[in-house]
Amino acid sequence: MQILTENEEIQFITGGNILTPKGFKADGVHAGLRYSKKDIGVIVSEIPANCAAVYTTSHFQAAPLITTKDSIAKEGLLQAVIVNSACANACTGERGLKDSNKMRELTAKKFQLKEHHVAVASTGVIGEFLPMDKIEEGIQLLSPGKDDQHAEAFQTAILTTDLVQKACCYSANIDGKTIYMGGAAKGSGMIHPNMATMLAFITTDAAVESSDLHIALKEATNKSFNQITVDGDTSTNDMVLVMANGKAGNSPLNKSHPDWPIFVQLLTTTCENLAKQIARDGEGATKLIEAVVTGAETDEDANKIAKQIVGSNLVKTAVYGADANWGRIIGAVGQCDAKVVPEKINVLIGDIVMLQNGEPQAFSEEEATEYLKNETVKITVDLQIGDGTGRAWGCDLTYDYVKINASYRT
Amino acid sequence: MQILTENEEIQFITGGNILTPKGFKADGVHAGLRYSKKDIGVIVSEIPANCAAVYTTSHFQAAPLITTKDSIAKEGLLQAVIVNSACANACTGERGLKDSNKMRELTAKKFQLKEHHVAVASTGVIGEFLPMDKIEEGIQLLSPGKDDQHAEAFQTAILTTDLVQKACCYSANIDGKTIYMGGAAKGSGMIHPNMATMLAFITTDAAVESSDLHIALKEATNKSFNQITVDGDTSTNDMVLVMANGKAGNSPLNKSHPDWPIFVQLLTTTCENLAKQIARDGEGATKLIEAVVTGAETDEDANKIAKQIVGSNLVKTAVYGADANWGRIIGAVGQCDAKVVPEKINVLIGDIVMLQNGEPQAFSEEEATEYLKNETVKITVDLQIGDGTGRAWGCDLTYDYVKINASYRT
Repeated sequence: MQILTENEEIQFITGGNILTPKGFKADGVHAGLRYSKKDIGVIVSEIPANCAAVYTTSHFQAAPLITTKDSIAKEGLLQAVIVNSACANACTGERGLKDSNKMRELTAKKFQLKEHHVAVASTGVIGEFLPMDKIEEGIQLLSPGKDDQHAEAFQTAILTTDLVQKACCYSANIDGKTIYMGGAAKGSGMIHPNMATMLAFITTDAAVESSDLHIALKEATNKSFNQITVDGDTSTNDMVLVMANGKAGNSPLNKSHPDWPIFVQLLTTTCENLAKQIARDGEGATKLIEAVVTGAETDEDANKIAKQIVGSNLVKTAVYGADANWGRIIGAVGQCDAKVVPEKINVLIGDIVMLQNGEPQAFSEEEATEYLKNETVKITVDLQIGDGTGRAWGCDLTYDYVKINASYRT
Repeated sequence: MQILTENEEIQFITGGNILTPKGFKADGVHAGLRYSKKDIGVIVSEIPANCAAVYTTSHFQAAPLITTKDSIAKEGLLQAVIVNSACANACTGERGLKDSNKMRELTAKKFQLKEHHVAVASTGVIGEFLPMDKIEEGIQLLSPGKDDQHAEAFQTAILTTDLVQKACCYSANIDGKTIYMGGAAKGSGMIHPNMATMLAFITTDAAVESSDLHIALKEATNKSFNQITVDGDTSTNDMVLVMANGKAGNSPLNKSHPDWPIFVQLLTTTCENLAKQIARDGEGATKLIEAVVTGAETDEDANKIAKQIVGSNLVKTAVYGADANWGRIIGAVGQCDAKVVPEKINVLIGDIVMLQNGEPQAFSEEEATEYLKNETVKITVDLQIGDGTGRAWGCDLTYDYVKINASYRT
């Protein structure tokens, strides 16, 4: 596997967002689900867009996910996605599904779209019903536009206790056209300490065939969103949605197109950027932890080990305390269901070698502590048994994590 | 599966310990591996005892585990186990193995035993070598005896940052004899924030065939030690060891003996008692969390779900904050690779129903908060799809957990 980085073919667009690709508008308003912050947002495409979505694997998929799946199943096209924060509409039974279908219907009416061209997403408390009067009022207030203020209104409306908005934009030359791809995401926060949803919405003006877009999205999310963890808990509402409206005018992309790999890379880069923003803004987090695993028997093994490292409470607290406890990294690697030869393993924190061929190395504690005070901490493990590589991202575990999650209602 | 409880056939022996069964002595001394606390301990049987052991599944099994396996492989008999704290002797390569073999040799000489009748266990920092001069001195200081002071000396010597000693004793009438079984354990603490080993040593005066003893131990540990979690991290040094010296005079037990189920229950009860003591004394913990899962398709599914619940950081922080966030329990259940029918699930915190047949129930927040302030919190999930049952134990996640693990060296 090639370790993806922002390479020559993919350009980062400073200040870009979901509205940089042609043909999309957005908005976000305060509908009263939250005290004062914006809480309902929408993205609308000028024309129905090819789309793909991936969803949480939880047994308890929330109602909006079922509504969205139903929409996409009809034609594989979406023209809008409506999102609310504050209430997850999860574990709400038949009434919950009726409510999310109603939310879809109201959005379709408001923007004169076909109902099945509307997707729905929610994030917030589990087990409470949507306040449909407020939802209805909120939808009426939406007035999508193309400028940065409208993008920011959307980015804000989908947040819960996230500290920062999460957006990015990249472009690439594909099929002789400049293709833009923008993303917005939320994750790690809790408006009510019942859940921690990850939502991401990606827009592109590329023309892409839906079935292949789905394949590309699965590949991209496996390397990005599925490789981040804040606390190891999977939400009932996780969703990543991409809309490709074809406004760039390229000939439709599919797996056979010579520029297909560039498109996949564009999508992966966008997903990775958003995923890292979510990990860095994890509840109570002060640092982003990146684990890079090389020399594994397979990429799957490498990804598994990388995720185990960034998911370990002991590694997370050590990084918070700027303590170069490589034994905890070994603990995480050791418990993985992956091929490991203890005598071959190398472990580095930053560029500082901790373990070489399974033997502890002398290192400067001071230098290591200094490195661990950075806002991004990289842990590298080379298994030296194969060509498999993988990466994962997480955050440190801090007093504030406990505070956010323990002391809300008491 | 029968949910095991301390039943009529198994008697709890108040104040009992590893020296209550006939024919065992123990001691613990300060050898200088730690500043002032005891750090080397030994249990000695009057005669070679049938034995069984289970070990960590980490890829990085520490040297003492390899030495112990080697000892047991020779004859299936043990007469002593030597244990040190402060240094795990893990990730120490060939020199580490030489050291643990030397520790075995020194113990055998001191007590005039066959080398392969000695087991070795260590707990402490990963990646540092044993100070063999201190180990040698310490072994010379050991002077095993039969009284409670000697049992406590051993129980203390194996601790790291555990707050309390962990011991218990039970008896049962088996084959017309009174059989005693005692246990000592450590776990959850860190003398140095590199590891968190779980060690347990069980003595019994029962006569038991070694091969069947091993089967019984695997069964008992699967229902007890393997169902606890403090932070989801598996140590390189975990070990549970049982020695059965036959001093009770019963005819040797095996799977065909009519009283075999009682013996297995005796062993399981002992393991469960120690396991719960470890979970309750988890780093920074203020509460024991018990998850009981019933109505699963299989016992395996039930155990998996129970462990996922007590392992969830979000559940752990909610319990710490006395917040009845049943949505977090749903989150944990939802991400399990087990059969779940969302519409059928019941969730209770204590006796308070949160979710019935998948529908949220009204409950008194005050009553729930009051219940969650108890030192033991029980979470019950009834899946209502089968007969599978399981239990697991964990602890709450607190500021002190972060403090213990983050702020040690900085």
